[in-house]
Amino acid sequence: MMEAIGRKRWAIPEGYIPSGSSFSERALISHETACILNANDRDAHVSITLYFIDREPVGPYRVKVAARRTLHLRFNDLNDPHPVPRDTDYASVFESDVPIVVQHTRLDSRRAEVSLLSTVAYAEG
Amino acid sequence: MMEAIGRKRWAIPEGYIPSGSSFSERALISHETACILNANDRDAHVSITLYFIDREPVGPYRVKVAARRTLHLRFNDLNDPHPVPRDTDYASVFESDVPIVVQHTRLDSRRAEVSLLSTVAYAEG
Amino acid sequence: MMEAIGRKRWAIPEGYIPSGSSFSERALISHETACILNANDRDAHVSITLYFIDREPVGPYRVKVAARRTLHLRFNDLNDPHPVPRDTDYASVFESDVPIVVQHTRLDSRRAEVSLLSTVAYAEG
Amino acid sequence: MMEAIGRKRWAIPEGYIPSGSSFSERALISHETACILNANDRDAHVSITLYFIDREPVGPYRVKVAARRTLHLRFNDLNDPHPVPRDTDYASVFESDVPIVVQHTRLDSRRAEVSLLSTVAYAEG
Repeated sequence: MMEAIGRKRWAIPEGYIPSGSSFSERALISHETACILNANDRDAHVSITLYFIDREPVGPYRVKVAARRTLHLRFNDLNDPHPVPRDTDYASVFESDVPIVVQHTRLDSRRAEVSLLSTVAYAEG
Repeated sequence: MMEAIGRKRWAIPEGYIPSGSSFSERALISHETACILNANDRDAHVSITLYFIDREPVGPYRVKVAARRTLHLRFNDLNDPHPVPRDTDYASVFESDVPIVVQHTRLDSRRAEVSLLSTVAYAEG
Repeated sequence: MMEAIGRKRWAIPEGYIPSGSSFSERALISHETACILNANDRDAHVSITLYFIDREPVGPYRVKVAARRTLHLRFNDLNDPHPVPRDTDYASVFESDVPIVVQHTRLDSRRAEVSLLSTVAYAEG
Repeated sequence: MMEAIGRKRWAIPEGYIPSGSSFSERALISHETACILNANDRDAHVSITLYFIDREPVGPYRVKVAARRTLHLRFNDLNDPHPVPRDTDYASVFESDVPIVVQHTRLDSRRAEVSLLSTVAYAEG
């Protein structure tokens, strides 16, 4: 099989989870996601650190992405060591023990319609 | 003519085709697209592998992009070896025998308005 | 002054100008834009080639971006050698004689609301 | 601790702050943001230059991003040496004394709904 694609360090400077949503179904609740691809034949152990405007970084949040799997990780669901505050600017750094690929997405439903943004994150290593 | 632009391996960690659409015309049905540019003077043979959260990868899906052409490939239209499931998180990896450029787009019309996202994919090789 | 930032070759695989718009004012008419930054102390001469699904490439379209200026070039406004067809998939390649930076944007107002997408283009050289 | 992630020079070719907004609360007023992450253990001193279509560049605007912090800088709030004109195309270049990561975002509320775009900026150095 091909050599796995990706890098070991990723950063997403934009972070903001609106507290408001126009819908109650999970798919349409306002959320931000880090879509992580692990195309390797072994598991990826990923440590996430969150950065804020006016306080020390929080983390690491630890997630495992199994071999040959993707994980679309909602920042809304991160709780250990602390939930991600809503209506608050943050940024995130991802460090993995094997190469991964990370893409950032927000679905924003504060208003009655859905708005989307996405970008491949910044990579190094 | 200039040397063709691009890379041979690309990844798109985000993948999600909503099953719902507010419109029935093809242009406004919810869809995800991989826009592929082949600026070479010979055809590109591209193999696509899809990754999921909880099952083994599916593929390869094989597409040809003719010399000096672009192909805006809807994931909705991929059927061989398997259709892409709707309302399901996935990711994708593209491998080409010549350099190509890949950009990812979603048009989401679950609600009465259209929402868009796009990013140049992650490249290697 | 600092060395100018950028690369000489850029590609945007996604291209699609909807023929429909919900508004008649220029700012809100459906359009696609290549935002070009020339931070150099001399003019940039840029050649643009458009690629299609089923016909030979068209171009070059030639634009000049003056020293220390930005140009937000609407694909809608390209007319020489040919207008860009509406409702038609295309892709584009930019070649400049000095380093530039290119970002792609679509404003889509087919529906009553505005939808946006944007990404930094793919760079080489 | 890990070596800080990032680059020292960044460019955002797209810039456009709509003068109109459908809402008066700060979060939903039309705005463009440069999300800056400084994962270093020392402060980042960032100089921003704005480029226009038909006049000389303006700047530098100087901002400090403290060690281990993020700053989501609204272009709307830049005032020294000059406010950023509304309804006007611009571009921006960021130069930092330590590595940073920059992501660009627009929230556009000219219409009754919110539209978003985002991309990691172009990096060098």
